[in-house]
Amino acid sequence: MQSTSPSTSPPEAFPAQTPAVAEIFTTVLSHGPLTRSEVAERTSLSAAAVTKAVRPLIAAGYLAEDAVDARRALGRPANPVRVDAGRALFVGIKATGDELIGVLADLCCRIRVARHLPLTDPDPRSVLARIAELVRELRTEAEGLGVPVLGLGLAVSGDVDRAEGTVRYSPFLGWRDVALGELAHAVSGLPVTVENDVRALTVAEQWFGAGVGLSDFALVTVGAGIGCGLVVHGKVVAGAHGVAGEIGHIAIDPAGPVCRCGNRGCVEAIAADRAIVDRITGTTGIAVTDAAHAVDLARRGVPGVREVYAAAGEAIGRGIATVANLFGPQRVIISGEGLAAYDLFADQIRGTFAAYAFGSAARCDVRTRALPFEEWARGAAATAIQSFIRSDIHQQRSHGAAARA
Amino acid sequence: MQSTSPSTSPPEAFPAQTPAVAEIFTTVLSHGPLTRSEVAERTSLSAAAVTKAVRPLIAAGYLAEDAVDARRALGRPANPVRVDAGRALFVGIKATGDELIGVLADLCCRIRVARHLPLTDPDPRSVLARIAELVRELRTEAEGLGVPVLGLGLAVSGDVDRAEGTVRYSPFLGWRDVALGELAHAVSGLPVTVENDVRALTVAEQWFGAGVGLSDFALVTVGAGIGCGLVVHGKVVAGAHGVAGEIGHIAIDPAGPVCRCGNRGCVEAIAADRAIVDRITGTTGIAVTDAAHAVDLARRGVPGVREVYAAAGEAIGRGIATVANLFGPQRVIISGEGLAAYDLFADQIRGTFAAYAFGSAARCDVRTRALPFEEWARGAAATAIQSFIRSDIHQQRSHGAAARA
Repeated sequence: MQSTSPSTSPPEAFPAQTPAVAEIFTTVLSHGPLTRSEVAERTSLSAAAVTKAVRPLIAAGYLAEDAVDARRALGRPANPVRVDAGRALFVGIKATGDELIGVLADLCCRIRVARHLPLTDPDPRSVLARIAELVRELRTEAEGLGVPVLGLGLAVSGDVDRAEGTVRYSPFLGWRDVALGELAHAVSGLPVTVENDVRALTVAEQWFGAGVGLSDFALVTVGAGIGCGLVVHGKVVAGAHGVAGEIGHIAIDPAGPVCRCGNRGCVEAIAADRAIVDRITGTTGIAVTDAAHAVDLARRGVPGVREVYAAAGEAIGRGIATVANLFGPQRVIISGEGLAAYDLFADQIRGTFAAYAFGSAARCDVRTRALPFEEWARGAAATAIQSFIRSDIHQQRSHGAAARA
Repeated sequence: MQSTSPSTSPPEAFPAQTPAVAEIFTTVLSHGPLTRSEVAERTSLSAAAVTKAVRPLIAAGYLAEDAVDARRALGRPANPVRVDAGRALFVGIKATGDELIGVLADLCCRIRVARHLPLTDPDPRSVLARIAELVRELRTEAEGLGVPVLGLGLAVSGDVDRAEGTVRYSPFLGWRDVALGELAHAVSGLPVTVENDVRALTVAEQWFGAGVGLSDFALVTVGAGIGCGLVVHGKVVAGAHGVAGEIGHIAIDPAGPVCRCGNRGCVEAIAADRAIVDRITGTTGIAVTDAAHAVDLARRGVPGVREVYAAAGEAIGRGIATVANLFGPQRVIISGEGLAAYDLFADQIRGTFAAYAFGSAARCDVRTRALPFEEWARGAAATAIQSFIRSDIHQQRSHGAAARA
């Protein structure tokens, strides 16, 4: 596994890893180009603090400024700054139950290259070998571009401890307590960030998607699982113990089907792909193979199938209403591969949300947005950028070094 | 109503109402006395920024510093600063369905005087006259202390728009769209803050109670209603449209009793005082008069009564588990007048929480804490202090002025 030739030089560092500098950088990343005073306005920092923070970022090449124009004569430099996209690259990988989706993203988190690799064996060692292979491929592409790769982000579904770089429990992969960050660092030599996949996608939505400019929103993903990323007071909610956004395990019906978590009537036990497939099989007697098959049966009007989607839509709508009643987000974004079936349960999702949202919580803007798996991988790259610019996030550097020693 | 002699002089202002100054002040309020460097450490602000912010606060008498000691010789003043409790007073009033509880709190939000006034008529005009009476009484006490009253906080259950000072909907009072802030300013001349009662209590818990030092916690109140205040990333969640923390309207059973909100099986429809009373009446045939009567029947072992409490405990436990699964708080504090019955459903609350908490979310520290209505009124005073020190909260000043004109 040492064939990836881990770099022995110290990793390149971002200047002044303070919360304020990270906030300034992400503000320019999301909204730039911006003048220093526009940055100050958006961050509630003083113009002096912004000017001071921007200087070393320009010197190190992370931010760029167009040629000084006439406005400079008025005092503080007035020309806008922007992130220099070509200054650095990051690898982001999303693991599903059966494939890896990897992207090479620039410092503006734009996808330069995307690759898919099938996963045949969910064993951590096997997945790790495939991760190493994908990282190697993407780094070869980066060498062609002549730009350094400064971090690796890995997005995995389930209970993930980002601070520790550990996957505590991932049902789709069948993992428990896998020190993925440490292992991935050992094979790549890169600083590694491991994050729950929905939270990683939420970071991308916050920076570049339907969450830009919002302090409070929820991203609800439907498909193999039912997940939720929450942004409250401008920051992604991680949970004091690593668990948050578990909309799939809101139990809405004591008489409902048993969930893999052991309880009855969880949203996921009614509305996830597998639950829908099983219920259609049970109702119709047809051996439904997968979600696409189920959608096909529904579209062909097979009796009883539409009702299963309707029940799934109601469960999702009730889950979203619960999120809205507790947090009162400005917006709820519905996404995930389950959107392929959206027309089959859209009315139930919206109708049930409206019925269960309490008072003004119903004013929340609920919308759908297609986000293919490349966007999830981009979210993984975004977490790597986040770790790179923030000193408050522990990355797999020392851990990995210890593992190699 | 002008007999309260509204002051015509401009209200006394807090120096430099910026988020940073408010944060410094509340940090000293919660944790003081603190040295400037301790404040800087806790707020992640620079020592220079703290020193600069503290200076005018000391000059205006809001903060106090003990006599300069020898440590000053080492550079920056090292002696601790503390809030000068006697510098200002605030009135906080909590309205229940049948009484007003008012307190006169000092700048450290310590209760100096507490008063109760019965409410015989929930009509807004009648309640307002009682509020005016209570404020007048408490201001007479303040005159005796020779300290100015600088704000009034009103805590009301239901859907409250703090920014507008409006009670949009309060089921217990039967109010809809009452411009309480404007009206209370007109009769008191004080800057008025109107807040949802559970959120007001949450502010007091965050500053002085079981939430001190926590960035993420929930306060769940059980009794006449089932409410929840959430602190996420260090700030109380208000909801983009004024609704948040509606744990009482998490619908957990499609076959459950009908809730006043129109849905079936809400936590509140199973576990609020009225729901428990009604269900015991229905089960036993005894005409139960109120919560105290219900508790008495349970303690006397009347058949069927314990089971009603058990079901209520399970509903509350599932509600708390949902809160924990969605945002992963460090702690959940259970309070409210319903704690009088806590021994009757404690096991069910804890057992159901443990069963429904997903993965590590179960590590959340769930504890009870008795908070009498005076503490709720203190929470109302805390919101008035909050408004006084923060420029980002709109208070009923200009509105009130317009109303008087």
